[in-house]
Amino acid sequence: MFQKVLIANRGEIALRILRTLKGMGLATVVAHHAVDADSPAVLEADESVELHGSTPVAAYLDIAQLVEACRHSGAQAVHPGYGFLSENAGFARALDEAGIVFIGPRADTIELMGDKVRARNFVAERGFPVAPGVIEDDDPATFVERARQVGTPLLIKPSAGGGGKGMRIVRDLAVLEREIETARREGERYFGDGRLFVERYVERPRHIEVQVMGDAHGQLVHFWERECSVQRRFQKIIEETPSPALSPVQRHDICEAAAGIARAANYRGAGTVEFIYGAGGEFYFLEMNTRLQVEHPVTEMVTGFDLVREQVRVAQGEPLGYTQADIAQLGHAIECRLYAEDSEHDFRPSTGDILCWRPPSGPGVRVDVGVREGQAVTAAFDPMIAKIICHGNTRAQAIERSILALEQSVLLGLTTNARYLTRALRHAEFRAGQADTGMLARCADELRESLTPDDIDLVLASAVLADRELLRAVHAIPAMHAAMGPWRN
Amino acid sequence: MFQKVLIANRGEIALRILRTLKGMGLATVVAHHAVDADSPAVLEADESVELHGSTPVAAYLDIAQLVEACRHSGAQAVHPGYGFLSENAGFARALDEAGIVFIGPRADTIELMGDKVRARNFVAERGFPVAPGVIEDDDPATFVERARQVGTPLLIKPSAGGGGKGMRIVRDLAVLEREIETARREGERYFGDGRLFVERYVERPRHIEVQVMGDAHGQLVHFWERECSVQRRFQKIIEETPSPALSPVQRHDICEAAAGIARAANYRGAGTVEFIYGAGGEFYFLEMNTRLQVEHPVTEMVTGFDLVREQVRVAQGEPLGYTQADIAQLGHAIECRLYAEDSEHDFRPSTGDILCWRPPSGPGVRVDVGVREGQAVTAAFDPMIAKIICHGNTRAQAIERSILALEQSVLLGLTTNARYLTRALRHAEFRAGQADTGMLARCADELRESLTPDDIDLVLASAVLADRELLRAVHAIPAMHAAMGPWRN
Repeated sequence: MFQKVLIANRGEIALRILRTLKGMGLATVVAHHAVDADSPAVLEADESVELHGSTPVAAYLDIAQLVEACRHSGAQAVHPGYGFLSENAGFARALDEAGIVFIGPRADTIELMGDKVRARNFVAERGFPVAPGVIEDDDPATFVERARQVGTPLLIKPSAGGGGKGMRIVRDLAVLEREIETARREGERYFGDGRLFVERYVERPRHIEVQVMGDAHGQLVHFWERECSVQRRFQKIIEETPSPALSPVQRHDICEAAAGIARAANYRGAGTVEFIYGAGGEFYFLEMNTRLQVEHPVTEMVTGFDLVREQVRVAQGEPLGYTQADIAQLGHAIECRLYAEDSEHDFRPSTGDILCWRPPSGPGVRVDVGVREGQAVTAAFDPMIAKIICHGNTRAQAIERSILALEQSVLLGLTTNARYLTRALRHAEFRAGQADTGMLARCADELRESLTPDDIDLVLASAVLADRELLRAVHAIPAMHAAMGPWRN
Repeated sequence: MFQKVLIANRGEIALRILRTLKGMGLATVVAHHAVDADSPAVLEADESVELHGSTPVAAYLDIAQLVEACRHSGAQAVHPGYGFLSENAGFARALDEAGIVFIGPRADTIELMGDKVRARNFVAERGFPVAPGVIEDDDPATFVERARQVGTPLLIKPSAGGGGKGMRIVRDLAVLEREIETARREGERYFGDGRLFVERYVERPRHIEVQVMGDAHGQLVHFWERECSVQRRFQKIIEETPSPALSPVQRHDICEAAAGIARAANYRGAGTVEFIYGAGGEFYFLEMNTRLQVEHPVTEMVTGFDLVREQVRVAQGEPLGYTQADIAQLGHAIECRLYAEDSEHDFRPSTGDILCWRPPSGPGVRVDVGVREGQAVTAAFDPMIAKIICHGNTRAQAIERSILALEQSVLLGLTTNARYLTRALRHAEFRAGQADTGMLARCADELRESLTPDDIDLVLASAVLADRELLRAVHAIPAMHAAMGPWRN
């Protein structure tokens, strides 16, 4: 059993992992770059180790320093969080060689699922659904001709890709060859690898993923699905569970497919099988993420399980200790990602000091945050500063509570997407449970801020007008937001 | 359907009710005394109405002013919260006569359950379990003799009582007559009514209660039980659900008994049937509270239902719309009541300005709070300033999370019972699920603070030492608390 665990991450996820480790009675070490020295995770950890690098991000990606930090601190295991080294097989191997446990799947599983073509073939060969398509590697000379036979609409993807980079949609076969060449150049630029594959494109696609968890003794369960169709440029913004798209039979089918894929890979630890879901109810394997997801809290809220705790338990070699029948879904949960960005100016990152931060509270509200008042938000990292996760007995109630919670959140000193999020939550397509991954782009005009900068200045001015009135004014902001919201949007 | 609802309460419950009303799209009015003008509930409400009184409490008890506040503001309904006028049949009648809906049961139900003897007889006559006992009113001349025949241990209770006031335990029949006279004088002093009744006293009693909800169309369900055995002088401090005392069969029996009692009373709205539960598994009706309970959030966390919303819905005449089979229990929830009081000095109330308040956050943590930074906490009201409610998949996890959340809470400017609560949560009897209502008194020495005032000053001094370091230091307090906790307690 572990006594001490090192967290190789930062921000909200470092703090969220820390909470669970502390609850389990484990000593904690947070490895961090100097710019994060004052962050809540570092301040609340039992120990911290500074990482150096040419950039802050480079420090968090430095495998040798992290292995040394474990040796130095005596940590027996590492939780990688998401991003950074969480899906890096080399990191898992380096820890393994140093006798340190990587809290995640085996290195060869990470490699298999990290190669989009290998993963697709693995899934298809075992009889699970993949979109009709062809792979360049199978016969490069005939790739264009084979792609043509898949039929339009087509999606060209880099074999080494992920996160939507380098992807192209083709609706007219006349431009197929040209688009393949463009995608190849993008693949080379983003991933240093120009190999491609082509799949039938699903119209109005929805993104539905399934959380799985396997132990080291061959037991594997799923924790139901999450829908993450509200995306801006392939970046998830609002996630929820259960998916409003699925009937009970479809839910069973997609969750069993995910568990079947993971079982076929003898999967250990937490993972997420992502699917594209079409308007006709068809679904196809997209990819498998071999780590904790940003949006894991919605699953925790409806199932009651602490997924980080389960990750630590199976990494210690403990059996799951429960079966599929023990994992119920209760109610509905929605996560909104609070970004430091300006939705009215092309979503450019907003930086500065957090002057005031009042998180929302109350029934069904969970806040996962990684920053504190007085801390600077820089452009060095991803601009996500908090996640507001709300539970309700019904989807409508979870939406209501999410809107209220966003309106109750007070953050001064930065521009955030809080009001953009409330507009998305209020949008008729989202409310009806019919958002697909194209909704935010298609509805960009409707989702624009209806207040003028003057209106907003007026609101904020009343909040910061006089020092002695500041505290009172800050608490009145939620009411002002609410008052402005429904009528003005 | 209501358009506007008035909240006749203050503090955390006023804000908690406000959240739900806003989520339902209803306009809100908060009636308040001037001392609460700067409280979050008043600041976040759409409208507020000031109440006047010889004392702040008197203002909240002034029926005529509240009826006028409804007329003036156009509110069609009143939510009374808990305490104050929430169980006052006269208030329900006055609203009814003014054409305003009281969000609660009918006035005659409030009266029936408010009279402990009538309620006991009502329950016993319908075949539900009451402790063996006798009532003075049945035949005053033979009361002492009849009481003697119940057998020891005996509990003497004022007929008009509640909250434990005027209650006496008798273990030796030789002192029975003297104790009856003492109890009579106390009953006269507290309630202006010296009539008594006597019941068999249950040794090592546990307090288990059941949440029920009925609509105006004869449908009634229960939302399972809560255990509230961790009490100090009949004041609940830690509440949880499910009860660790009950087997599935006992849970079914006690919940069905509660629902049966409420159905017999044709109960409408939210109510709680309280039972005394003995070490042998026997349980007896104690009383029925005809209002929302302080501890309702633990039920909300394990069932997913918003009980305030359900109260409003049934008050509007809506049918429940669900059956008993739709109400599941998922995981475990614990509520800790954060009091402004000094556990090391006989729990005397602590007053002053809240200089700094950082609520806990993260997985499974709900905070219901009614105060804000900069607000004064006075001795005018109950000293409860917040409720920290934590959910976990298991009881052990809910306890862990509660301890962490209390350690993460930072409140400067007042003394609170936060560290006392963590000691109670860590106590072996509580951890083993064996707390009875006498635990806190019996274990008072073990629950005393082990730090000297000097140690505590040292911790706080490091937090407030230098202005420019304050924010950083405040965020380090949770780690300091945690570091002090397990080893020093």
